[in-house]
Amino acid sequence: MKTLGITMGDPAGVGPELCLKLAQSTRSNVEGLVIYGNRRILERVANQLDLRIDHLSIVDHFIDGVDEIQPGQVQSCCGLASYEILLSAIRDAQAGRIAGVVTCPINKAALNAAGLSYPGHTEILVEQTRSASHAMMLSGEEMSCSLVTTHIGLSEVAAQLTTQRIIEVGKLSAEVMERRHSRPARLTVLGLNPHAGEGGLFGNQEEERIIQPAITHLREAGYEVIGPLPPDTAFLPHIRQRTDAYICMYHDQGLIPLKTLCFVTGVNVTLGLPIVRTSVDHGTAFDIAWQGVASIDSLEHAVQFACSLV
Amino acid sequence: MKTLGITMGDPAGVGPELCLKLAQSTRSNVEGLVIYGNRRILERVANQLDLRIDHLSIVDHFIDGVDEIQPGQVQSCCGLASYEILLSAIRDAQAGRIAGVVTCPINKAALNAAGLSYPGHTEILVEQTRSASHAMMLSGEEMSCSLVTTHIGLSEVAAQLTTQRIIEVGKLSAEVMERRHSRPARLTVLGLNPHAGEGGLFGNQEEERIIQPAITHLREAGYEVIGPLPPDTAFLPHIRQRTDAYICMYHDQGLIPLKTLCFVTGVNVTLGLPIVRTSVDHGTAFDIAWQGVASIDSLEHAVQFACSLV
Repeated sequence: MKTLGITMGDPAGVGPELCLKLAQSTRSNVEGLVIYGNRRILERVANQLDLRIDHLSIVDHFIDGVDEIQPGQVQSCCGLASYEILLSAIRDAQAGRIAGVVTCPINKAALNAAGLSYPGHTEILVEQTRSASHAMMLSGEEMSCSLVTTHIGLSEVAAQLTTQRIIEVGKLSAEVMERRHSRPARLTVLGLNPHAGEGGLFGNQEEERIIQPAITHLREAGYEVIGPLPPDTAFLPHIRQRTDAYICMYHDQGLIPLKTLCFVTGVNVTLGLPIVRTSVDHGTAFDIAWQGVASIDSLEHAVQFACSLV
Repeated sequence: MKTLGITMGDPAGVGPELCLKLAQSTRSNVEGLVIYGNRRILERVANQLDLRIDHLSIVDHFIDGVDEIQPGQVQSCCGLASYEILLSAIRDAQAGRIAGVVTCPINKAALNAAGLSYPGHTEILVEQTRSASHAMMLSGEEMSCSLVTTHIGLSEVAAQLTTQRIIEVGKLSAEVMERRHSRPARLTVLGLNPHAGEGGLFGNQEEERIIQPAITHLREAGYEVIGPLPPDTAFLPHIRQRTDAYICMYHDQGLIPLKTLCFVTGVNVTLGLPIVRTSVDHGTAFDIAWQGVASIDSLEHAVQFACSLV
C-alpha cells in the first residue's frame, strides 16, 4: 500500500477544504493519503463547513498566530507556511516515506509577502530536488499537453525553441505516459506556425530547422512520434485518440485546447523530478475560500494521476 | 425571396458533390440557390454518385477540355475555371443579381498552375471589390473568432499588432454579428501573452500598450467589449455564452479552440467586403473528391450564415 502526501497549500485558499473533502470522497482511498498542513486550520474549516476531520492523517505544521488567519487574504504567515509545508512533503518523498506529492494551490503574492520570490511550486520543487531538466505537463480527460516553453512572451517563443529542448520534453513526456499506461507512449508534436508553416511559407522554417530534427531524433531513439502537425487541426478527436501526450511549443498552444475541452479535470504534472508530483490546475481562488463551493474534481484527478505513477 | 450564389470551387475537388448534395438536402431551400459552376462536371459527378441534377439552377461556365478533368488532381484548367467562376459570382453579387456568395473550396496549387498567384479566395474578393479593410472570421456552433493577424509566422505576430487594426477587426466583427442577431454584439478581446501578460510579467506589455487602448476606443464608440482576457481560459463555457465574437490576435489562438470544439460546422466569413461572402472552412480534399463521402455540414452552415446576413 503506497501513501501519497497531499499538501494543503495556502491556508487562506481553497486548499484546506479540498483536503477535507478529498478525505471524505468515496472515490478516494483515505488510508493512502497523508495531509501535509496545519491541524488547527483544518479544524476551523471543518467546523465552518461541517466536514469530518477525525479520520485524517495529518503531518501538522506549526503556524505562529494561526487563529488570526483569515480566508481569502494575502498573509505573509500563510505564504511562509505553504512553503514550509511543501518542503516537508518534498523531504519525505525524497526519503521514501511517501510515494509522491500532490499539491494544493499556493499563492504567489503571499509567498512574496513572506520574502519568498518563487513564481510557483515548480521552481521550489526543482530547487529542492536539484533537478537538471524538467517540464510541465497539463493533463485532462481529453488530452495531455507538455510545454516546450511556458511563461514567456509570445514574441520570445520562436527564439527560445531548440531541438534539444523539444527532445527533452518529448522524452520526459514519453517516460511519464509509459509509466502511467504501462505501454509505449504515442507523442504528437505540434508545429509553431499556422498550418505548421505550410512548407516554409509562414515563419522562419522553425518546423524544418528545429522541430523536425527533434522528431527524427526521437524516432531514431525508438519513440512513437508524429508531427509537426498544423496546430489548429491537431486536437481533432481522431488525433486525440492516438495521442498520449502533445508536445506544445508554447503555453497557450497547449492550454487553450486543454482548458476549452476539460477545464474542471485538469492536472498539472511536473516531469523530470526524482519524485512523483502532480497538482491541481487552479489557483487559491481566494474569492471562494472556506465557503465549501470549491470543486474537488481537479484534486481527485491529480491524486488518481499520481496513483497511476507510483 | 433572396437568392444566394454558390460557387462550385475547383472542379476536381469536393465542391461539385457538395453543391449537388446541398441542393438535395431537406434543410436547404433550393429555390433560393444558384450554382456557379459547370454543368458537365456536375452531370459527371451526379451520374457517378447517383445524385439528381435536373432541379438545379446553374450558371454554366465553359471549361475547355472538361471531359479530361480527373478528380483529385491539380489541373491548370481547374484552377482557371475556379477563378473565373468566382469572378462571375462576385460580379453578380455586386450588381445585386444575387444577395450573397457562398464559396466551395479552390486549390492554391491549381491556381498557381494556371498562372494565378493568389493564396486563396479572400485576396481575389478583396481585389475585385476594391475593399479597403477586411478581416477573416471563422464561425462554428460554439463560437465565432475574428483574426487580427492571419497567415504569418508566430514570431511576427507581436510586431504586426496595432491598436488601429484591433479596432478595425472589432468593428467589422460587431457589425456582422449585429446584422446576424439583430441586436448589439458582445465582443471578447484576447490578450497576446500567457495569462494576458499577467500585468506585464510576460511579453512586452502588448496588452497594456496595444490591446487595452483598442478596447477603450471600442467601448467609447458604444461597443460592448470585454478583455484583454487570458487566452487559455477565454473559451470556457460561461465566457462563450456571453460572446458573439472573439477578437483573436493570431491564427491559432482562434482556430485551435474553434476547430477543437466545432470542426464539422465551421464557416469562414469575410468581413469588410461590400458583398456578403461566406465559405466552407475546409479545402478541396482531393483525396476524397467525387466519392460521395464529403460532409455538407460546413457548406450548410455557410449557407445558413449567409442567409442570416441578407
